[in-house]
Amino acid sequence: MLKNVIVVVFGLISLFGFIGQADAEAPLSEATTECIDCHTTFQPGVVESWMKSRHAMVTPEQALAVKGLANKISNKDVPEDLRPNAVGCAECHTLRPDAHADTFEHNGYDIHVVVSPDDCKTCHMTEVDQFSLNLMSYAVKNLAENAVFQELEQSILGSASIQKDHIKFGSTDDDTKAEACYYCHGTVLNVAGTETRDTDAAGELEFPIISGWPNQGVGRINLDGSRGSCTACHTRHEFSIEMARKPYTCKECHIGPDVPVYKVYSSSKHGNIFSTKGDGWNFSPVPWTIGKDFTAPTCASCHVSLLVNTEGETVVERTHQMNDRLPWRLFGLIYAHPYPKQPDTTIIRNKDGLPLPTDFAGGFADGYLIDADEQTRRAQSLQGVCQNCHDTSWVTGFWRRFENTIKRTNEATLQATTLMSEAWKNGYAKGLSAKANPFDEFIEKRWCDNWLFYANTVRFASAMGGGGDYGVFADGRYHLSRNLTEMRDWLNLRKAAAGPQKRK
Amino acid sequence: MLKNVIVVVFGLISLFGFIGQADAEAPLSEATTECIDCHTTFQPGVVESWMKSRHAMVTPEQALAVKGLANKISNKDVPEDLRPNAVGCAECHTLRPDAHADTFEHNGYDIHVVVSPDDCKTCHMTEVDQFSLNLMSYAVKNLAENAVFQELEQSILGSASIQKDHIKFGSTDDDTKAEACYYCHGTVLNVAGTETRDTDAAGELEFPIISGWPNQGVGRINLDGSRGSCTACHTRHEFSIEMARKPYTCKECHIGPDVPVYKVYSSSKHGNIFSTKGDGWNFSPVPWTIGKDFTAPTCASCHVSLLVNTEGETVVERTHQMNDRLPWRLFGLIYAHPYPKQPDTTIIRNKDGLPLPTDFAGGFADGYLIDADEQTRRAQSLQGVCQNCHDTSWVTGFWRRFENTIKRTNEATLQATTLMSEAWKNGYAKGLSAKANPFDEFIEKRWCDNWLFYANTVRFASAMGGGGDYGVFADGRYHLSRNLTEMRDWLNLRKAAAGPQKRK
Amino acid sequence: MLKNVIVVVFGLISLFGFIGQADAEAPLSEATTECIDCHTTFQPGVVESWMKSRHAMVTPEQALAVKGLANKISNKDVPEDLRPNAVGCAECHTLRPDAHADTFEHNGYDIHVVVSPDDCKTCHMTEVDQFSLNLMSYAVKNLAENAVFQELEQSILGSASIQKDHIKFGSTDDDTKAEACYYCHGTVLNVAGTETRDTDAAGELEFPIISGWPNQGVGRINLDGSRGSCTACHTRHEFSIEMARKPYTCKECHIGPDVPVYKVYSSSKHGNIFSTKGDGWNFSPVPWTIGKDFTAPTCASCHVSLLVNTEGETVVERTHQMNDRLPWRLFGLIYAHPYPKQPDTTIIRNKDGLPLPTDFAGGFADGYLIDADEQTRRAQSLQGVCQNCHDTSWVTGFWRRFENTIKRTNEATLQATTLMSEAWKNGYAKGLSAKANPFDEFIEKRWCDNWLFYANTVRFASAMGGGGDYGVFADGRYHLSRNLTEMRDWLNLRKAAAGPQKRK
Repeated sequence: MLKNVIVVVFGLISLFGFIGQADAEAPLSEATTECIDCHTTFQPGVVESWMKSRHAMVTPEQALAVKGLANKISNKDVPEDLRPNAVGCAECHTLRPDAHADTFEHNGYDIHVVVSPDDCKTCHMTEVDQFSLNLMSYAVKNLAENAVFQELEQSILGSASIQKDHIKFGSTDDDTKAEACYYCHGTVLNVAGTETRDTDAAGELEFPIISGWPNQGVGRINLDGSRGSCTACHTRHEFSIEMARKPYTCKECHIGPDVPVYKVYSSSKHGNIFSTKGDGWNFSPVPWTIGKDFTAPTCASCHVSLLVNTEGETVVERTHQMNDRLPWRLFGLIYAHPYPKQPDTTIIRNKDGLPLPTDFAGGFADGYLIDADEQTRRAQSLQGVCQNCHDTSWVTGFWRRFENTIKRTNEATLQATTLMSEAWKNGYAKGLSAKANPFDEFIEKRWCDNWLFYANTVRFASAMGGGGDYGVFADGRYHLSRNLTEMRDWLNLRKAAAGPQKRK
Repeated sequence: MLKNVIVVVFGLISLFGFIGQADAEAPLSEATTECIDCHTTFQPGVVESWMKSRHAMVTPEQALAVKGLANKISNKDVPEDLRPNAVGCAECHTLRPDAHADTFEHNGYDIHVVVSPDDCKTCHMTEVDQFSLNLMSYAVKNLAENAVFQELEQSILGSASIQKDHIKFGSTDDDTKAEACYYCHGTVLNVAGTETRDTDAAGELEFPIISGWPNQGVGRINLDGSRGSCTACHTRHEFSIEMARKPYTCKECHIGPDVPVYKVYSSSKHGNIFSTKGDGWNFSPVPWTIGKDFTAPTCASCHVSLLVNTEGETVVERTHQMNDRLPWRLFGLIYAHPYPKQPDTTIIRNKDGLPLPTDFAGGFADGYLIDADEQTRRAQSLQGVCQNCHDTSWVTGFWRRFENTIKRTNEATLQATTLMSEAWKNGYAKGLSAKANPFDEFIEKRWCDNWLFYANTVRFASAMGGGGDYGVFADGRYHLSRNLTEMRDWLNLRKAAAGPQKRK
Repeated sequence: MLKNVIVVVFGLISLFGFIGQADAEAPLSEATTECIDCHTTFQPGVVESWMKSRHAMVTPEQALAVKGLANKISNKDVPEDLRPNAVGCAECHTLRPDAHADTFEHNGYDIHVVVSPDDCKTCHMTEVDQFSLNLMSYAVKNLAENAVFQELEQSILGSASIQKDHIKFGSTDDDTKAEACYYCHGTVLNVAGTETRDTDAAGELEFPIISGWPNQGVGRINLDGSRGSCTACHTRHEFSIEMARKPYTCKECHIGPDVPVYKVYSSSKHGNIFSTKGDGWNFSPVPWTIGKDFTAPTCASCHVSLLVNTEGETVVERTHQMNDRLPWRLFGLIYAHPYPKQPDTTIIRNKDGLPLPTDFAGGFADGYLIDADEQTRRAQSLQGVCQNCHDTSWVTGFWRRFENTIKRTNEATLQATTLMSEAWKNGYAKGLSAKANPFDEFIEKRWCDNWLFYANTVRFASAMGGGGDYGVFADGRYHLSRNLTEMRDWLNLRKAAAGPQKRK
């Protein structure tokens, strides 16, 4: 009987794993110990978060020793001096001091505030390299250096002033930009100088002043010149894989009507299963086993994670180039289109010479977008995930409908664009041909609503299993059709009244 | 001391129940064993989900032996050959092979892809019979065979083209329909032929091609002619009662501004309690004990589940006719109204001869809707749930306000309809009397907004304890009143300008 | 080995604490025992909730004995007779019988239905006193006795009727008010008489009829004249601190586009961490330890709770004056402004003599709002929380952007107000100067949209770490700029057509 008790108790122990966790603490370097000594008082939240992290529990040495798919360190040449200790404060914040413009002397150490992907790359090389191929890594440049997008940005963020017959959107300030578009896209960090602060712990100390800080946008330009911010998804300082795998992380930037990903997901069958059953799932294992660890996908399952089946066979490989399994870019600019070949989309020229992946008539910017073969490869890669829970007839039926939705929403956008062109042609609004901002008048904004909100929402609803009302009554086809009638109605009135409404 | 340890350990064991679960596995039929042998490799997600299900753990024989309210099998005449084994793949997918048009030979078995309510009825007869009385079971016919609703559907899904002074919404394709309205309402399944697929496991195999597939809409027309899809709420293949009882299931179809049920619930006091405390509740027991298993209702508690009080007395019986406790149909068509008597609403004729439960002036289609006595019975049935946590003064006060809201929102809809009629009468838009679609012009869509979105949202907010801002600022009375002013404003402008804006 | 087993088992016991909980039950008074005897049958939900509460487990005597920050009873003079028993039904519902207009004889006891803050004050004096300084405690008066807000309320809730060229919003009924604005603001309770009800348990009994009941609004006027409803946040009858600390409670009233607090929070980095990791946090300890009990703030962490760092030092003190850490009132009326000095805002007069904290040009109502010193004190108090996870450069950068957003959104509101003034001046709408409701015409409602929805949403997005798309595409700057163009467009059309559109 006692033996049974012991067996059961050990079963419980391993079930909850707390003894295993206690053992897992890794030795701290002398430098990190020194950091923690002070900062545990001044930023207990940071220190406590980190203490819950895998970085605090496993040394690179131990992590490198893990073989096979469970290995988490893609760079096998981790410097020897980093191997024996936990990955603590000093390990990251003193790495590559010469590369970081914000490196400053702090209690005898050369530390930098902003840890960058190129720091993380010391261990996670493949992931950083993959991410650099992802559109997100160019999220700043792709917005800030695209003349058309800049017109759109200005028509939204620009300082508004009333003119005789229109609203003028002037330039805006950096703080507004950082709170708006660039909150998700990322800011450009620069060292603007230094300041002396009187600290509780150590009296007067000098710190760098970093313009563009704070920011965790996916395309942030860092002080070592690298692009991106791993903490956008791997939230500091716990860097929890559970967090990156749960949909709340993606929700931070994908919640509005332009990309209502989280809303659609959480209303889909998959989202329902996650919400209802997710508490019992295991979000930490690498690799991640379909059916055993989870019974419905999250964003990461389909788009990022290394998945295996219950026999341990790889279903899809991990990718941090999130579009690697995506044949179509749903986000309409102004039409949905095959993914751009390169993460830098400023190089694209459509047939009108504009830096847009499609032209106004819906044609794709040939040569700049992935071809049909690559689309097929990506579609098959994604469908490979679906097929672990759905048979072929389900998957092909779903996919056919999804591509039909792309086609139909592109057609609807063409109708909206035709109405917009009519307004421009007749002088009811001023667009590019009048050397004016094509997004800054009311009818132009209604046109934007069509592709930016409604067509996009309909597409995302189709892409994620018809999630919720988003295909129809929640910014879906109802709104898309209503918007077309509003544009028509607006034009009718101006045509009936003739001349006077025209902008001078 | 050792004895205490043992007692405690066994307490823990029963607390977590894992040994009990392990024991609960039921024997598999030979056929199901064969299915699993292959499909555990090809669809591990499906197999793993099923292995977590009650169907995998309890045989019909064991389930039939459960007496009293805990019994889950309402058909006592379950065929003998199904009783001794787990309810596995073969038990459902080979049931009634002659009844299913998609039955095909597969590795020596006659299997069908789409399991239908009439299959589930083999054990769950009462539930299927009740559901057949529910409006949802006619969700396809009620939309597809109602001429007025077809106009509405076409004005939303129809292929849009620009006409001289209006947008024409033409017909649409089946794939769009299946991704939009019929995603929730259900599709009509048909066997369109067969195809040969080259499978990894067994080389070339023949499969049926099913048009309308995949779909899990509540009113799906199945290949045995039955109506509905149990998996709409009892998600395959875990068929978890926990899932059906949590509000995320209802959210799949009730999230848009037309029926913002989940949004309102999750912002209500009840939703708050569920979100905060629900992790500690028990969602699986049958019957479900108020106070002990849960301390605030979910959708299922009020509308579906068998509830008992802490003394084991029945508070309300289980019903799968979800409107059995609902005196009012809130969803305005175009006014809120007593529930239709029959689930088939295509038979209704209002005083204008239209297949609508109310006429344009707000009158109810007498004879087709439940009478006051039935309304009282249903109200009392629902209030019987409320009274387990609220005293009589609370419940009557709440109910009086709720019915007042129905009255007021119907009054507001009448104002909107009067404005719409003025537009039709004066030729500013073309409605039914002009033999035109009454929903396809801008002002008509603004009229729809009034009853379809704002009046409905206000009603659902009242129905669920005033949940959140939905009664006022979130698609509520603010938007309803704004919309009326917009319709008035639109008409003012056309009247002032006279003739020219009229549609030719 | 056995010893180890025992140690582990006891570790598990304390881990789950179930034995400790069982011991914690406090003795019941005779009166409460009598209440429960009946009501456990009639309202099992209420009784079961209460049995899970701290009130059921700890006597005031035990609670008073707790020393230091963990003490939960701020009135040290709790009456002797209340000290030895659990805080049960009778302890609250028979307290101060003479003070409550709804006190009635019930089975030999003088009980009152509505427990008020002045009852709660018997133990929780400091909290009630603090709350009385909070704007929320005056939520009824501040709305019902402010002539300008009454115009706004009427333009939303008023019974609508069609006039020649406008919609008239008449008066509305009390039930609509109670379902709309006053659901959150609170109702005025009054005893309207008594009624006799035939009860299952005890035959005919007499009960008070309470107008305005049920309601749990934050500013409810109670039957003892006190203001507020503790159950708005401390949901009856579990009164769980966990519930008050989770964001779902705040969501009940802060979800619409006017105050999209929950939406923004749940899409922010903080909300992501809460959603992902919150299940493992401890929401019950007093004081609440940053990093140890939670690793990201909820609403309560920043605005209400007593927080300590991991060394047990107080970071911020508990306050139930929720604006005590808030220098700015973001909610635009019609501009964001420093917090009013007094919770009674009906006393405010702006330079135009209106009871508004700002004038139409954006000027602050001097003398009625907190001064710069108090703003600084409050800002530092709030930032003190931030600094437990963020360094100074992060916090100051964030704060600078946040205050910039206040400035920019106020500027945008000024543009909208200028357009509105132009409409009023030219007779295209009738405002205050024409002795008309300034909120009841379409263009006026578009003006409201600007400050009430879009400017507010943008501010809340900035206030909570740029949460989600709410700064741009989800009722954010996109909508704010679009709305300005719509107002301009509306005016252009009327100016072009001249005279006819003017309201007579």
